[in-house]
Amino acid sequence: METNTKTTPVTAPADDPRTADAVARARAERDRTEQRLFELLRIPSVSTKVEHAGDCRSAAAFLREELADGGLEHAEVLETGGLPCVYADWLHAGDDAPTVLVYGHYDVQPAEPLELWETPPFEPTVRDGSVYGRGTADDKGQLWIHVVALRAMLADGGTLPVNVKVIIEGEEESGSEHLDGFVERERERLACDVVLVSDTHMLSAEQPSIVSSLRGMAYCEVTVQGPAVDLHSGIFGGAVRNPAEALANLIASCKDADGRITIPGFYDDVVEPSADEREAMTKIGFDDDEFRRDAGVSATWGESGWSVYEQIGARPTLEINGMWSGYIEPGAKTVLPASAHAKISMRLVADQDWSRIGDLLERHLQTQAKDMPGVERVTVEPLHGGRPVLVDTTHPAMKAATTALEATFGKPPVFTREGGSIPVVATFTEQLDAPTVLMGFGLPDDCLHSPNEKFSLDQLHKGVETSIAFWHAYADVHDS
Amino acid sequence: METNTKTTPVTAPADDPRTADAVARARAERDRTEQRLFELLRIPSVSTKVEHAGDCRSAAAFLREELADGGLEHAEVLETGGLPCVYADWLHAGDDAPTVLVYGHYDVQPAEPLELWETPPFEPTVRDGSVYGRGTADDKGQLWIHVVALRAMLADGGTLPVNVKVIIEGEEESGSEHLDGFVERERERLACDVVLVSDTHMLSAEQPSIVSSLRGMAYCEVTVQGPAVDLHSGIFGGAVRNPAEALANLIASCKDADGRITIPGFYDDVVEPSADEREAMTKIGFDDDEFRRDAGVSATWGESGWSVYEQIGARPTLEINGMWSGYIEPGAKTVLPASAHAKISMRLVADQDWSRIGDLLERHLQTQAKDMPGVERVTVEPLHGGRPVLVDTTHPAMKAATTALEATFGKPPVFTREGGSIPVVATFTEQLDAPTVLMGFGLPDDCLHSPNEKFSLDQLHKGVETSIAFWHAYADVHDS
Repeated sequence: METNTKTTPVTAPADDPRTADAVARARAERDRTEQRLFELLRIPSVSTKVEHAGDCRSAAAFLREELADGGLEHAEVLETGGLPCVYADWLHAGDDAPTVLVYGHYDVQPAEPLELWETPPFEPTVRDGSVYGRGTADDKGQLWIHVVALRAMLADGGTLPVNVKVIIEGEEESGSEHLDGFVERERERLACDVVLVSDTHMLSAEQPSIVSSLRGMAYCEVTVQGPAVDLHSGIFGGAVRNPAEALANLIASCKDADGRITIPGFYDDVVEPSADEREAMTKIGFDDDEFRRDAGVSATWGESGWSVYEQIGARPTLEINGMWSGYIEPGAKTVLPASAHAKISMRLVADQDWSRIGDLLERHLQTQAKDMPGVERVTVEPLHGGRPVLVDTTHPAMKAATTALEATFGKPPVFTREGGSIPVVATFTEQLDAPTVLMGFGLPDDCLHSPNEKFSLDQLHKGVETSIAFWHAYADVHDS
Repeated sequence: METNTKTTPVTAPADDPRTADAVARARAERDRTEQRLFELLRIPSVSTKVEHAGDCRSAAAFLREELADGGLEHAEVLETGGLPCVYADWLHAGDDAPTVLVYGHYDVQPAEPLELWETPPFEPTVRDGSVYGRGTADDKGQLWIHVVALRAMLADGGTLPVNVKVIIEGEEESGSEHLDGFVERERERLACDVVLVSDTHMLSAEQPSIVSSLRGMAYCEVTVQGPAVDLHSGIFGGAVRNPAEALANLIASCKDADGRITIPGFYDDVVEPSADEREAMTKIGFDDDEFRRDAGVSATWGESGWSVYEQIGARPTLEINGMWSGYIEPGAKTVLPASAHAKISMRLVADQDWSRIGDLLERHLQTQAKDMPGVERVTVEPLHGGRPVLVDTTHPAMKAATTALEATFGKPPVFTREGGSIPVVATFTEQLDAPTVLMGFGLPDDCLHSPNEKFSLDQLHKGVETSIAFWHAYADVHDS
């Protein structure tokens, strides 16, 4: 939560003799950079839908080709048991130079509800300096930054001051089910000093930031089974427990009026921020009004006693991501549904364990349901889980990212806590013993996971120059 | 609630010289009766879906032709402003003879969820003596009984002892929106002494029954609006009110743990059954175990202090018919939904007014939502309403129905309260000043509105003979 206090003057990458050529090349190729990105964006690589498995593989093949064409070596599509990963590297900086593993994901969220998109989700369209489409910011546009930066540096016989490996996965939006096993098996190939990820957003276009904390996640699907089949609500209604109503009661039982989660044991392992940390969070420059405007709500609501910034970054949450039961098409149907369903995700903070939290949810719901005669069965199926992460802000690579961002944006970044989850970060910590630098270039209004997702082209191109600056900044800090 | 105490011996319609010929003809034509019914069942006349408007009109045309071919006159498809009504009559019984208006509906409920049907809903299939398909029992198979009975009586120059008018509507399953206006405009054409409806079920195949009470209905669609668009649940979750959760809380607020509806004023106009009526209801022969088996639940649940039979027949209810929000496809999507929706129907008893009850629901939900910052808007849209009905069990036509059922089934019928709603019954009372005899031939396990709806072919053919007997029984009682 510290704001960065580094004061050494930094040189813009275009003016630094070590990076000026690469920046010039990147600037000259901006049109190609955008057009090739749009090609990638046109591939509907929705990992959560099996019918898009072929598209996911097309996106992987496209990236492999682009990396190889850009001067990286050993470019390969690697099987994981699920959707594949793309790998490439450039390892000629010498044994003394550090190794950076760049991580990104080529898969995207489903685009539904389609009718709310102003332009088709898989037809990238530029409006007001941003490209609109599914995956523009999350994460195709952001991973593209490093692909382009490496290409600009390696062109015309150029070199890198650090060793670089690139790994781009295809199951991030569906729980990275096969990545843990893959990273474990490929520990040698992926060995590195630090992981660099651009899959988060900055506080604003004027205020760069680095994420120092990510929430984990436990995502479950809950099914409440009532009668054996859908019944006529006139003939049976009044004497048969309605599973939609039972589900509503179960959901309502998970939180109290103060927005506090009432699942027994839920908060047991939460590391509460210290008074100093809470004080620091008040100075982060987080704008509640802007948050409210971005969300499109007249008032925020969350766990009482915590600021909005803390509610979304430092506190665990429970959200209903989907809910359905009975007749959901237009018109009236007098049915008493046989079952009711909800997708429930809980964002977790250190040291909550997603597997235990899933169990606690299940135990709570089963206990509640015991007092509901006519609820025949409640099942809680875990859909995916991820560990929360706190990043060491004093690591050399964090300092390098700070320098690179300041050099490009003219202002030192602040460290922020982000509500989202990138489960693989914990995997890298455990399997590769490497910390992760979360240097994101998205903006808060990018509509991730929503209709009309966008990514600012200005952020894209500034991101490329930041990436170019980062390699040298990291080599500098590592040498010193 | 009285059980019928008539003891006069009755003659089976096949043995009554006045009806023996018609019965013989109906028996000889059973194959045609079934095949033509199957043709009607193949037409997917789902009135609540606009894309089936053409099918609804095909069903109307089919019935008009069948009625005309069966010897009825003035057979016509009459426009209502929505889906049309089929009309036909036979008015040669003389001015002194009473006039019966037979009412049915050719439209059916949507067939979803399609995957739960053992055979396709619009491909009638006979198994174990029943025909399976959408609309078999509700109401094509039941209205067909009278179409066939009239045909059998009018064939070979036959006559009827009463005047008969037939009206078959096409919007019963979508709220009979245009029927009130139609009946008012066509009051002359539809004038009658009594209305005969077969759209209910008997207690069992061995125990005929006549429904003396129907619940009314107020059906509303509730929408809870939260953020302007679907949001990323990681970035916004924790500080933005989740509309699915808010809807769950609103639904939970409508009933207490005793199953009593907590909407202020909801029970104000309920006419509670007298102690005598409650005593009579215990003797109706209603089988809780069979009800539980039919529903496929291990335990019933409803308003405490009332029997199952009372809960479904004599007490008002509130049921969730449908509920949806956010991401409802397979897999995990971390979305905080913009809105959440529920279809809520309330079955009403005398003297509850559906319009007032809809208003009370809305007021209750709005009051609750006031204490939910971040719920931007709650809308309650009435989808349809119908008045509850109590039928006079001493009316001559009720006695005639009693005689006809006993003659065919060998056992006098009992009077029952049914939980379902047939809103048009109240319309006939008010516009035509005519009571309605609810002589249904369905069975409790017919799966109305559910997958695998069926109608017993034995009930169909016994129904035809009961209908044949009814005309004479009514003429007898009317003359005496």
